[in-house]
Amino acid sequence: MTYKELYNQIKKKKSFLCVGLDSDVSKIPACVKEKFGPENSQYEFNKAIIKATAKYTVAYKINTAFYESEGARGFEQMALTVRYIKKYYPEIFVIADAKRGDIGNTAEQYAKAFFEKMNFDAVTLSPYMGADAVIPFLKYKGKWAVILVLTSNKSAEDFETLKVCGVSGEKKSRSDYLFERVIKESARWGDKNNIMFVVGATRPEKLARIRAIAPDSFLLVPGVGAQGGTVNDVATHGMNGSCGIIINSSRGIVFAGCDKKFASDAAAKAKELAAKMSLFVK
Amino acid sequence: MTYKELYNQIKKKKSFLCVGLDSDVSKIPACVKEKFGPENSQYEFNKAIIKATAKYTVAYKINTAFYESEGARGFEQMALTVRYIKKYYPEIFVIADAKRGDIGNTAEQYAKAFFEKMNFDAVTLSPYMGADAVIPFLKYKGKWAVILVLTSNKSAEDFETLKVCGVSGEKKSRSDYLFERVIKESARWGDKNNIMFVVGATRPEKLARIRAIAPDSFLLVPGVGAQGGTVNDVATHGMNGSCGIIINSSRGIVFAGCDKKFASDAAAKAKELAAKMSLFVK
Repeated sequence: MTYKELYNQIKKKKSFLCVGLDSDVSKIPACVKEKFGPENSQYEFNKAIIKATAKYTVAYKINTAFYESEGARGFEQMALTVRYIKKYYPEIFVIADAKRGDIGNTAEQYAKAFFEKMNFDAVTLSPYMGADAVIPFLKYKGKWAVILVLTSNKSAEDFETLKVCGVSGEKKSRSDYLFERVIKESARWGDKNNIMFVVGATRPEKLARIRAIAPDSFLLVPGVGAQGGTVNDVATHGMNGSCGIIINSSRGIVFAGCDKKFASDAAAKAKELAAKMSLFVK
Repeated sequence: MTYKELYNQIKKKKSFLCVGLDSDVSKIPACVKEKFGPENSQYEFNKAIIKATAKYTVAYKINTAFYESEGARGFEQMALTVRYIKKYYPEIFVIADAKRGDIGNTAEQYAKAFFEKMNFDAVTLSPYMGADAVIPFLKYKGKWAVILVLTSNKSAEDFETLKVCGVSGEKKSRSDYLFERVIKESARWGDKNNIMFVVGATRPEKLARIRAIAPDSFLLVPGVGAQGGTVNDVATHGMNGSCGIIINSSRGIVFAGCDKKFASDAAAKAKELAAKMSLFVK
């Protein structure tokens, strides 16, 4: 999917909402497990959530952990979910929240897994190992690397917000935060058409700083809702002329309801968030 | 597996070799694919390699990328491989080279995937997101987090070797490399009994520096062979009184041979590396 196609969808739906399908089997309503069997419950739960929320949503994010913890059958249900979205809602952007980060021929294998075997549009990547961990993903036209920059968790301050010194051979500038250096360095690897950045909604003051370094790039923003971020703050500090942000909510939507009403409760929650977003979409 | 059990195995086998089962289907000999079918070839290839190399080997490392790229069936063959090793060679340490790094309830799902669903002893983790990405794995007794510190790839220099400044509230020390800060910080999360570090064999001069900061910890060292590191250099700069290093070789062993002789060629290569190591094991 291109930058323009994504932006067009945002304008059309007046929403920049991403729904995170963190479909933890232990939290899936009993009615789903009883009707379809526990081994099919992630896929069936996802289908119901997708049907109910697609009109408010420009993206779905699938965190691989919740599927891998169910073994090969979980992995298969993840693949089936992507196939379902791509079949019935081909305009929706699908992100593998995999946070992978490996190099060379190994990174190529991950790219093959997420972009070829499964038809994800994007995959989240950890930048720790540098360019080698990202570049193999950028070789796929129309696919995206979504690089961890400043995450929403407390221990983001262990390393992401450390100040780093200039590298040799480079004119010494004011010291950057590590997360700023990641953004600057990634400009050598790709551009706004194939790289996005993950920035937590819990740090709106940093969001403006990031927007200044990466004026054109899309930011994927988790942490709205339970973690304390708000649509207002994120939109105010993070938007650019092409929207430039996708806000993710996972549990706050997919586990909003209980038992038989789970899908309509999820839809209501998605609608509520999208309504807040619509005020910001020109 | 405990620190002591791992060390005892090293003394018994006079080897600190880890064989990396990077079982890329496109490189698996035709005879295996023909006999067992391509969809079983990773598992059958692994079994043959394990049978041939187990006596020279204290650990197997399974890089998840090569299995995920084959979809759910690949994922299943990975799980079957761990089960096979644990059934027939329970003394051997089994590492998921997954380089995961996620937080909170997501990290718990990965721990469940690798330690409960599959019976890995250890999993490699990226430290970018800080403590939150590691601590859930340390709650499992006898299991290990293997944290990326200084990797063997060229772009390790993008971020891992940046100098970082002191954090607020801490007495300003001489500036550390980011990878040093990761080691120091991780001392707050666990100890030599549940944390190891990944350090590339291609940087022996840094290995001594790391050993000085983490005198007691095991280091998992890839990069011997094709990438240019040597057993001699790594052992000289990296060993401690309890050996303290595990050297990994993947392609150099498992794809050492061609077609029908693949297992015996792999065994010969493993034997050769173990013989070099035996000179260093007291």
